[in-house]
Amino acid sequence: MARVEIGQQLGMSPASVSDLTASLLDEGILVADETGESGAGLLRGRPKVRLTFADTLGSVIGVWTGFNRIELRLVDSAGRNRASRHIERPLRNLAAEELMDVLAETITAFARETGAPDVKAIGLACQGYVDTRDGIVAWSPVLGTRDIPLAAGLGQRLGLPVLIENDASAMAFAIAQRHTELRSGRTACLMVGDGVGLGFLIQGELYRGARFGGSEFGHVRLRRSGPQCRCGGRGCIEAFLADYALHRDAQLIDHRPAPTVLIPGEDAMDAIVAQARAGDTALSGLFREAGEVLGDAVSILIQTLEPDHIVICGPGTRAMDLLRPSFETALESQTIPELRALATIQVVESSMDLLTEGVVMQALRELDYGLARLKAA
Amino acid sequence: MARVEIGQQLGMSPASVSDLTASLLDEGILVADETGESGAGLLRGRPKVRLTFADTLGSVIGVWTGFNRIELRLVDSAGRNRASRHIERPLRNLAAEELMDVLAETITAFARETGAPDVKAIGLACQGYVDTRDGIVAWSPVLGTRDIPLAAGLGQRLGLPVLIENDASAMAFAIAQRHTELRSGRTACLMVGDGVGLGFLIQGELYRGARFGGSEFGHVRLRRSGPQCRCGGRGCIEAFLADYALHRDAQLIDHRPAPTVLIPGEDAMDAIVAQARAGDTALSGLFREAGEVLGDAVSILIQTLEPDHIVICGPGTRAMDLLRPSFETALESQTIPELRALATIQVVESSMDLLTEGVVMQALRELDYGLARLKAA
Amino acid sequence: MARVEIGQQLGMSPASVSDLTASLLDEGILVADETGESGAGLLRGRPKVRLTFADTLGSVIGVWTGFNRIELRLVDSAGRNRASRHIERPLRNLAAEELMDVLAETITAFARETGAPDVKAIGLACQGYVDTRDGIVAWSPVLGTRDIPLAAGLGQRLGLPVLIENDASAMAFAIAQRHTELRSGRTACLMVGDGVGLGFLIQGELYRGARFGGSEFGHVRLRRSGPQCRCGGRGCIEAFLADYALHRDAQLIDHRPAPTVLIPGEDAMDAIVAQARAGDTALSGLFREAGEVLGDAVSILIQTLEPDHIVICGPGTRAMDLLRPSFETALESQTIPELRALATIQVVESSMDLLTEGVVMQALRELDYGLARLKAA
Amino acid sequence: MARVEIGQQLGMSPASVSDLTASLLDEGILVADETGESGAGLLRGRPKVRLTFADTLGSVIGVWTGFNRIELRLVDSAGRNRASRHIERPLRNLAAEELMDVLAETITAFARETGAPDVKAIGLACQGYVDTRDGIVAWSPVLGTRDIPLAAGLGQRLGLPVLIENDASAMAFAIAQRHTELRSGRTACLMVGDGVGLGFLIQGELYRGARFGGSEFGHVRLRRSGPQCRCGGRGCIEAFLADYALHRDAQLIDHRPAPTVLIPGEDAMDAIVAQARAGDTALSGLFREAGEVLGDAVSILIQTLEPDHIVICGPGTRAMDLLRPSFETALESQTIPELRALATIQVVESSMDLLTEGVVMQALRELDYGLARLKAA
Repeated sequence: MARVEIGQQLGMSPASVSDLTASLLDEGILVADETGESGAGLLRGRPKVRLTFADTLGSVIGVWTGFNRIELRLVDSAGRNRASRHIERPLRNLAAEELMDVLAETITAFARETGAPDVKAIGLACQGYVDTRDGIVAWSPVLGTRDIPLAAGLGQRLGLPVLIENDASAMAFAIAQRHTELRSGRTACLMVGDGVGLGFLIQGELYRGARFGGSEFGHVRLRRSGPQCRCGGRGCIEAFLADYALHRDAQLIDHRPAPTVLIPGEDAMDAIVAQARAGDTALSGLFREAGEVLGDAVSILIQTLEPDHIVICGPGTRAMDLLRPSFETALESQTIPELRALATIQVVESSMDLLTEGVVMQALRELDYGLARLKAA
Repeated sequence: MARVEIGQQLGMSPASVSDLTASLLDEGILVADETGESGAGLLRGRPKVRLTFADTLGSVIGVWTGFNRIELRLVDSAGRNRASRHIERPLRNLAAEELMDVLAETITAFARETGAPDVKAIGLACQGYVDTRDGIVAWSPVLGTRDIPLAAGLGQRLGLPVLIENDASAMAFAIAQRHTELRSGRTACLMVGDGVGLGFLIQGELYRGARFGGSEFGHVRLRRSGPQCRCGGRGCIEAFLADYALHRDAQLIDHRPAPTVLIPGEDAMDAIVAQARAGDTALSGLFREAGEVLGDAVSILIQTLEPDHIVICGPGTRAMDLLRPSFETALESQTIPELRALATIQVVESSMDLLTEGVVMQALRELDYGLARLKAA
Repeated sequence: MARVEIGQQLGMSPASVSDLTASLLDEGILVADETGESGAGLLRGRPKVRLTFADTLGSVIGVWTGFNRIELRLVDSAGRNRASRHIERPLRNLAAEELMDVLAETITAFARETGAPDVKAIGLACQGYVDTRDGIVAWSPVLGTRDIPLAAGLGQRLGLPVLIENDASAMAFAIAQRHTELRSGRTACLMVGDGVGLGFLIQGELYRGARFGGSEFGHVRLRRSGPQCRCGGRGCIEAFLADYALHRDAQLIDHRPAPTVLIPGEDAMDAIVAQARAGDTALSGLFREAGEVLGDAVSILIQTLEPDHIVICGPGTRAMDLLRPSFETALESQTIPELRALATIQVVESSMDLLTEGVVMQALRELDYGLARLKAA
Repeated sequence: MARVEIGQQLGMSPASVSDLTASLLDEGILVADETGESGAGLLRGRPKVRLTFADTLGSVIGVWTGFNRIELRLVDSAGRNRASRHIERPLRNLAAEELMDVLAETITAFARETGAPDVKAIGLACQGYVDTRDGIVAWSPVLGTRDIPLAAGLGQRLGLPVLIENDASAMAFAIAQRHTELRSGRTACLMVGDGVGLGFLIQGELYRGARFGGSEFGHVRLRRSGPQCRCGGRGCIEAFLADYALHRDAQLIDHRPAPTVLIPGEDAMDAIVAQARAGDTALSGLFREAGEVLGDAVSILIQTLEPDHIVICGPGTRAMDLLRPSFETALESQTIPELRALATIQVVESSMDLLTEGVVMQALRELDYGLARLKAA
């Protein structure tokens, strides 16, 4: 965190911030990072003048809940990754209370087993429409219940502050922390993976809509009468591009035995990509179609939001070489050239790790500001 | 079989036919059916003046091969159904020789266990493009190999004549035998079930194309960028209407546990239909979309073939009440009214039984003509 | 006309035909064509042993009615083209009686001005659904009225037999006369020009549907929510491929001044094609899209009719070089390869002249048979 | 303008603003509006405590340029409409310099003929992508040239400050001034008329993208292989909903004589709407299809921007009764219900007048702030 950011957030003059940080450095709460290197942990703040919190001020646990798995990550107050865990667990059929019980137990066990020191907060990211102010998962394609008060429910069970976020927004936040230039202007991050989501940043801050959520861009209907989507609609962007969609269609082409899970793992997806790269006509066709949809989707973002930056990220970027030809053709054929020319388009290869990183960073930032506010008071 | 038909087929004058049939009645080969009733067996020939073969002249076995099952039926020379059997057996992964071994064993066991008297011929129907003259399955969505010489291969193994046919053509033939009026003019039978197929009859005889096959109408692409089809294409008629397609999409909506088979059984389909009838919005949407595709498909048939009759048949008719509103809207909205007015449109509820009936009837007819030719010589 | 054809048509033995033709040759009604050359006129009958009618037995006038023009052609009894004429005349807004008056006057004037000797019959081709038995234009996109008894109405006015035919069927007939191989097996002729039509031949004879018409294949809906078509539907094959459609879309791209006619002339179409060939991106896009639709259309024909031959003909073939890349991609991507391999696909460059030629040949054939029947009686 | 707004804009404390406004009221520059009524002129600022500028401080001219017409409006410094004019003039084929000459002459003549007192500024709105900071029309579907420096070019010719704006943004701004509640939260205004555009407001201020433009949402491709659009693409929202698109398609259905202009006038559109309301099937179909596209478009806005308010405005609202059934079906069928529930959806019937009003208000606001800044300095 740079001094200027602290100042902006707290509404303090640079001079007051300098006084405050000097005091915090003295007390060992802040540590000056002279190297400018990012080290093994998370990248927080701008290079050059960097102050990090000491790693002894407690830790934060980041959680991602998917259709049938939970990802966990333990990070210390300096932003260093201390432990992570992948748990296979079907969540879809749980009622709201059960879901919160399961998550609380899982988090507690993870903290105990990793010897997590002084956990200060939980950050949780999930697919779907998340009311970030009230901490409610209004709707999620991977949960069977609607309007789950997840932040309050988990908070009560764990006795800790819980921040929840849409997963694409969390990843967008994490990426913008790593890539400084994405924090100026408007940046639209399209995350492709288990689903398709959008995190939209204006000057580095997440755009918030009417209910403090992010968008559900992945469920925009791009092809009337297209393939079925998990949301109940048809022809959504996600129904072409998400791992589950590609896997579903690949399975039909190959007449493979039916899978035992609806959501494929990384190995299954790698196998499909490898087979398409090896020249399988029908599987190549899947990626050609998906690439066309990706091009149309980015075209919509460009023509609706006039962004400075487009980022394509998430595990789905593993097949970017297969998606690219039809992606570019679709994008060029349909976008006003003057608008197209405005936006940089970057592909950031990124696993689901970046999700938990993103939500941890958001939680840490809240803690930082809370701490700074306390000191400043 | 009516005398006039025998005459037409053999190129004999009515008088000569009368002499011949009198002789065959004397010998007990033909039996006059005075009732005009169809009895328990198959309907063969026109009502009124009916001659049937005696039931002591041997029998025929009809077979249908699906993705993971085999249907068998034993019929005597009078057209009466004697036994039938349903066998679950994955066929898709078998090589051509293995497939023919399995089928030969299955048929032999069935004949033995049912005490089939003096089997004269085998009729076999399957999905896909079937060269009926040379007895070759050129391509089938349910078989892993192409260009299988099924008639010759099975014939050698069983020592019997084997007739093979596309399954929708077999069903069309069976239906036309039951419904006299469908044997005059042009009749397009759209079979909806495991897949979607077309049997097209001109004056009661199956239309044959360049390779003596039927059509692959189910794989007409109706919606570019539509759902994935088993043939490797996208947006085929089948990819909306076939049981496997409806089941695949229903499963995604419900997030049910994954099935252990790709092709759903009758129970699974009934459950989906019941849930849609009970008002489930997303499932109703599936049938609305499928109905629209059915309307477009029938419109293509009307505008391409100018038929006198359209028949919608097969197990998929179980949900005709759910399909009908959007079917009719699509049909009306897109078809030249003058052409639309020409064709009667009938729904014939029909299980897969009708398939084996159809192929048995074709085999019996071949035998009949062979026998009659022999006698006439 | 070859002796064997006469025999087949009249149900006479070859010997009786020889007697008859010898007599007709003596009388000067038939003329033996020793060269085997087609000469300047029409090609009628098979090569090798050719008998043509003498050119002194009268003549036939062929007529084509389009949206705003009439094409006329005078042919003598030997099949030689004697005169032709192109008349610009809006027909769309005429009531049925007016239309028939205009046509009768136009034909009479043409016959008078060209000194047509002893006109025996009129052959008239038009777009739309034509009941060829009763001589009724049931519906046409270029006429404002439905169910016009054109054959009877014109026949009364002119005192001559009038044969009417769908224009794509007439062109298919003409092409099959010129290309012997297209008269064996099943030949689907897709005519692209003012509209899109299908003429389907089985063993050289036009397929007739329930009302003795041809198909309205051009109005098959290939793209739901596609461009508006003249028939009132959307996304019809014609709405992408017909001259009027390409011209409409080109005009919008270019913001040219609005045209004074809805249906463009040959010059206007040539200009669009030239501009696209010169590299205009948006205009090239029109042909790419049209080519894709053409590929899907041919795929439907192949998968529905299993034809031996596909012919793409009509003025729209002028841009076949621009249509071909996307045509082939679409066709390959969507058609079962075994079916695709069965059909030859030929492009026959052909102007609207071939239309009037086709309908004249049909009228001549009717006259020939009538004459032969008379003599044979 | 309310005191609190002035304070926010100028970064002054409420107390300082009170001092400033008291002084301006004394000088006769500001006038207190005690009635709270909007009077004959424009609505500016919040009700209750309203200060308006005196009408003697000069005037502003608002201009809208369409495909073949110019709309002009004269407004005084109190926001009262003094005169307006409609001029038919093709602009599409003009080069950049010619265009600016024509506009300068037209504006000068209008000012002279209306006796415009002391014109202070020009506000100009047009379709297309407008760089509002540098005053450049980067691209417009109604202009033949790209990157026109319209603000500078007109400014030089007229010797006045010129503000340019995308027309949908101008209308959105005007509507938000009239409807207070639309100035809180996020408001997406979809303008339907000559084209389709989007004005997006956050807390009452226009969202600006990378080049200070608005969106080109009307050119989002909603239907691959859909109708041709003016932008060179296919299946854009505009290609279904804009007046030119409805008129083009209606014309084809009716086979009316071709129009002499590409862009229909209000009378032509009213005639089409009346005919559809009277039950014309094909014309009703146009509005059904357009309504479905409108529903999908609003669904995209909801799922991408999570807005508090959706406004459908512009002349195209004249047919809202015809659009509504399919609009609602499409919107409900495709939008996540939780997101759908967040946004109010309003239809604001509005002619092109509102466009010039919007751009005038923006220009006036700039003047106001300039004046206030001057006084505050």
